[in-house]
Amino acid sequence: MKADLIQDHFKSLQDYICQYLEKVDGSAKFEEDFWQREAGGGGRTRIIRKGNVIEKGGVNFSAVEGPVTDLMKKQLQMEGDTFFASGVSIVLHPNSPKVPIIHMNVRYFELNTGEYWFGGGIDLTPHYIVPANARKFHLHLKSICDAFSNDAYADYKKWADDYFYIPHREETRGIGGIFFDHLKASEGIAKEQILDFCLALGKAFPAIYEEQVNLGKNLLFSEQEKQWQLLRRGRYVEFNLVNDRGTKFGLVSGGRTESILMSLPASANWEYDFKPSANSPEAFTLAHLKKGINWLSEEFQ
Amino acid sequence: MKADLIQDHFKSLQDYICQYLEKVDGSAKFEEDFWQREAGGGGRTRIIRKGNVIEKGGVNFSAVEGPVTDLMKKQLQMEGDTFFASGVSIVLHPNSPKVPIIHMNVRYFELNTGEYWFGGGIDLTPHYIVPANARKFHLHLKSICDAFSNDAYADYKKWADDYFYIPHREETRGIGGIFFDHLKASEGIAKEQILDFCLALGKAFPAIYEEQVNLGKNLLFSEQEKQWQLLRRGRYVEFNLVNDRGTKFGLVSGGRTESILMSLPASANWEYDFKPSANSPEAFTLAHLKKGINWLSEEFQ
Repeated sequence: MKADLIQDHFKSLQDYICQYLEKVDGSAKFEEDFWQREAGGGGRTRIIRKGNVIEKGGVNFSAVEGPVTDLMKKQLQMEGDTFFASGVSIVLHPNSPKVPIIHMNVRYFELNTGEYWFGGGIDLTPHYIVPANARKFHLHLKSICDAFSNDAYADYKKWADDYFYIPHREETRGIGGIFFDHLKASEGIAKEQILDFCLALGKAFPAIYEEQVNLGKNLLFSEQEKQWQLLRRGRYVEFNLVNDRGTKFGLVSGGRTESILMSLPASANWEYDFKPSANSPEAFTLAHLKKGINWLSEEFQ
Repeated sequence: MKADLIQDHFKSLQDYICQYLEKVDGSAKFEEDFWQREAGGGGRTRIIRKGNVIEKGGVNFSAVEGPVTDLMKKQLQMEGDTFFASGVSIVLHPNSPKVPIIHMNVRYFELNTGEYWFGGGIDLTPHYIVPANARKFHLHLKSICDAFSNDAYADYKKWADDYFYIPHREETRGIGGIFFDHLKASEGIAKEQILDFCLALGKAFPAIYEEQVNLGKNLLFSEQEKQWQLLRRGRYVEFNLVNDRGTKFGLVSGGRTESILMSLPASANWEYDFKPSANSPEAFTLAHLKKGINWLSEEFQ
């Protein structure tokens, strides 16, 4: 399986997702920027803004290549002279505090030594956690994982809990999802199957988000709920700029800043030492921003 | 000179600055939070919000001590069993886009080995750069530096240009100021003189900011200028969370998150690939977010 083929699959995936999301939004259309990387390759950044549902979001495709830099050697702990990397990366920030923020990413990395791996993940960040909705989200992920391998959901769900975590807040970013990295062929799993798993996740993505959108988009919200959304977006900014390894690596390695930071919301707020009142929906949400919650539990039905 | 004495000076400095800033604001009063650090010491965080002039700001005092952790050894590259650290740290975000954001910090660090050093800095982040105002700011800093040593202004101004820089944006945070670190007694300079220099900077700080406030606070501004302010605040957030070594070290070393992140604005915006129109005041500002500008130049009079 050639890198070119994987790249073509990812490009088609971007097309599919953008078309679907335009239907979900019902108003805004993606704008497109092509960019080239000096050392080799480039990308297709697509941005959607001021929609019916989506206030600001991006669906990035990139396929870059070139010499392995010292920084890559150090941070990725690998050897090789040249690399190829391709992926699709998405973040969507909705208008309504009753609709969650979502992120999805699939990626492939290859060295001239023949070494390669796949990585990716999806996670949901509700401004207000609704356990029954979180359960729906995780059920879809379990079903996609189960078609790939028996342990995948349990393993990748835990990985997401650990990855999408903000240590300085002692909070998870949201209700998690799945995260995986360094997947390569092993006994019983061929390279094609890993690609198929990544593509299955990517193809399921817009329908999974559509369900979450439909669960929230017609709910009324107050000015106070909007303010809470802006504070939660502040946390999203903190995670992405302080904790997200992908963002940090992209910025220091000379990635295209505007494509990387498309993940930031249109606006975010910070209020010193804000604490929601006891027994409020905001306090309920905070209490559920924890690792290790079994969102498939029947108590959440 | 005992650590206790330095700590007392810094505490008095916090008092002086807060009282002065309340006069500058004319409306809001500081709220105070005392906090303790589990491993030793604590702090006095003072927050001002929703004022006439200042939308959100903080003036922190802290004096912490305890065992030197592995993280400190690695990041600070030093040896010792126990440490003591004290400092005052300030960030003020004004309401008006015509008034600049300001930051100031003085700090002292000491090891049980007898090693010690002072550090600090001040820098100004105008949403709209006005060279004559930038010149006034730098003239004050030069005068404070000149009373300390002949080379201080040139050296510390360059240090600030390098420190308050956002590599992924290829922009300085603002018009710079001065930055210094690891200052200790040497031939011709006693420890007391370094402390006096830090205190002189701290005492001059509120009057320096008052001048900048008065230059801008009565100017009218448009909705478009307000939007630009929110985008510039986005850059401020990026610098603090991605690039500021003090913030990053504080967060990973278990500092008090709410005190560290008091530096973030009440609100900030991000817009994909925003570019100001040619020859606009916004484009003028961007063109001056560069290292190496001589703000003392008579052309800026």
